[in-house]
Amino acid sequence: VEKRYLFTPGPTPVPPEVLAAMAEPILHHRGADFRSVYERVLGGLKEVVCTSDDVLVFSSSGSGAMESAVLNLATPGDRVAVVSHGSFGERWIAICERHGLDVQAIRYAWGEKPNADEVGSAVRESGVDLVFCQQSDTSTGVVSDVQAIRGALGDATLVVDAVSSLGAVPLETEAWGIDVVVSGSQKALMLPPGLAFASVSERTWSRVTPRTFYFDWPATRKAQHKLDAAFTPAVSLLRGLDVAIALLLDEGLAAAFDRHLRLGRAARAGVKAMGLELFSPDDDSSAVVTAIHSPDGIDSDDLLKHLRTRHGVTLAPGQGALKGKIFRIGHIGWFDVFDIGVALSAIELSLTELGAEIERGVATAAAFEAYEQPVSTLP
Amino acid sequence: VEKRYLFTPGPTPVPPEVLAAMAEPILHHRGADFRSVYERVLGGLKEVVCTSDDVLVFSSSGSGAMESAVLNLATPGDRVAVVSHGSFGERWIAICERHGLDVQAIRYAWGEKPNADEVGSAVRESGVDLVFCQQSDTSTGVVSDVQAIRGALGDATLVVDAVSSLGAVPLETEAWGIDVVVSGSQKALMLPPGLAFASVSERTWSRVTPRTFYFDWPATRKAQHKLDAAFTPAVSLLRGLDVAIALLLDEGLAAAFDRHLRLGRAARAGVKAMGLELFSPDDDSSAVVTAIHSPDGIDSDDLLKHLRTRHGVTLAPGQGALKGKIFRIGHIGWFDVFDIGVALSAIELSLTELGAEIERGVATAAAFEAYEQPVSTLP
Repeated sequence: VEKRYLFTPGPTPVPPEVLAAMAEPILHHRGADFRSVYERVLGGLKEVVCTSDDVLVFSSSGSGAMESAVLNLATPGDRVAVVSHGSFGERWIAICERHGLDVQAIRYAWGEKPNADEVGSAVRESGVDLVFCQQSDTSTGVVSDVQAIRGALGDATLVVDAVSSLGAVPLETEAWGIDVVVSGSQKALMLPPGLAFASVSERTWSRVTPRTFYFDWPATRKAQHKLDAAFTPAVSLLRGLDVAIALLLDEGLAAAFDRHLRLGRAARAGVKAMGLELFSPDDDSSAVVTAIHSPDGIDSDDLLKHLRTRHGVTLAPGQGALKGKIFRIGHIGWFDVFDIGVALSAIELSLTELGAEIERGVATAAAFEAYEQPVSTLP
Repeated sequence: VEKRYLFTPGPTPVPPEVLAAMAEPILHHRGADFRSVYERVLGGLKEVVCTSDDVLVFSSSGSGAMESAVLNLATPGDRVAVVSHGSFGERWIAICERHGLDVQAIRYAWGEKPNADEVGSAVRESGVDLVFCQQSDTSTGVVSDVQAIRGALGDATLVVDAVSSLGAVPLETEAWGIDVVVSGSQKALMLPPGLAFASVSERTWSRVTPRTFYFDWPATRKAQHKLDAAFTPAVSLLRGLDVAIALLLDEGLAAAFDRHLRLGRAARAGVKAMGLELFSPDDDSSAVVTAIHSPDGIDSDDLLKHLRTRHGVTLAPGQGALKGKIFRIGHIGWFDVFDIGVALSAIELSLTELGAEIERGVATAAAFEAYEQPVSTLP
């Protein structure tokens, strides 16, 4: 028997009660049994997204919801701005360019946090009225301050990719005036991949012109208002989502955010105690993913392979130019401090086996100590 | 305890071993465990689609795969032809028109079978080189002769929607020279909704220009050739698909087609014995869905509601102009003759309770008798 541990920033582990719900017999999507599930899900999503506006549901991965925003909000030739500081910022740019938009890329080094004032100046100077950014770029672990970015943009419509951050870090969609939030099921929502979401603010609807059939926002909204779906929805995933949302709201969003923040602290404390260097920012914003430099002389892909084959532990690799250089621990969703302990122990063991010089026997103690500190007492 | 019976043409019932596979812990889509599942699925899909060409996999409903064909094969202003004889033919037209194509609609009355010679003449006269049609239009139960349509088209590229027919009726994709087959998971493949497929013939690739990011065929093919996916795939559904394909191939495609054909016969025999009038064609092609006129004075939506609330049996309603007039029994996928017996018994009971004059006590016997006849001995 080899136990397996999934510590990637998506897909993430799914609680057994969610898995069990997905294994129940299939319900017809227009039957009364399903409609009560669907009604709870549509209401629960609004709570999770912190908005009273519609949260549209698509059967797709998060990238489908990202493309839906481009195809419902822009037409070819439009000038738009993208704030990019990682792999998923580059994805916004690729989607916009695929559809003939004129993209003003506001780029930061991967691992750097975007500066809201700079972004605001760039957008206001260029007169662009549609801006895309990430709340969390999973490729680097950077969580940006989308409230500040929103505040700096004036009247421009802001679309935030919260695929990996929704449910993990605060996102006051309506209170902060964020126009569109896109997200996915396979991160902090504790579900398998296959569902994606887009919340759309009231003022945004006036600029919506769908240039897509499958991701048509008005058709999706119209169907949802009748507790229907524009296309046969992934009913088993939606039953799982019903259970997962209940778990999340039972814990409470504030408690979940607190837990993720302390998981990030625990991961960073353990990593540093081992003598490793962090790639993701060493502050409380890094509550989703902890990205770590591989020690000198050790290719991070070799480390990941060793972790997986020798110890059954799956972490995530570096992407793009960071391939082989960093590795990442996702700590989102159905995740607790004991998981951090397992991840750190496996890293410690594997690096030792691969011949790296690291401090042994201190990482998990440092992690548990960091986790125990209440949030309010630390700077 | 009220047992529930799902006899709709999608979503369809899912076998317990498939449900159990989907309830297993989440695998990372780039890990070795998942890649072996994925390799079997990609190979198995080729067997099911009867082609040696790539079968592209999307996390979406079948309509997503339909739109993918339009967005990869046509550019705005292109003239295309659509053969429409039901709700899903109209969907092809709507997708094509959404993307600015010039659509030549070759329409037949709902319930009528398209005539291959007529379709061929219309296409050849107009010089259109891209044609969309349905193998099975779920809204009417009509299964068209796509081999004959293919033969009548000359060199034009043919895209066949086999969402509800793949695995239920013969479709010799490569042997018949069908260029593109799109399908979905929630019909004869015995899976929940959430996955869609597009097989693309070798000669078709030269005309592919993706005008979509999420449904980009070349990017999807490139990823699949590396046993990767362009976007995080619906891993739990793919694990279920692995089991479902094994079940289907263990039965054997020929045996599955034989079973569906006899299920259609059984449904029609029972319906007629009761004294009801068929809407779908009364021949062996109607192996997917049996559509039935509601008796005089009974709104079919009332019948369906009665079936569902009183007896726990879900059938499908009439769509469009057929709403209230017909009802439909889907008999695809994980379905046997005892299910036909339950469906007929529940219809008989409900119609009696609603005051219709029907022949009682004969439908199931007629159905079982029809089912027992070997396929080859009947005309």
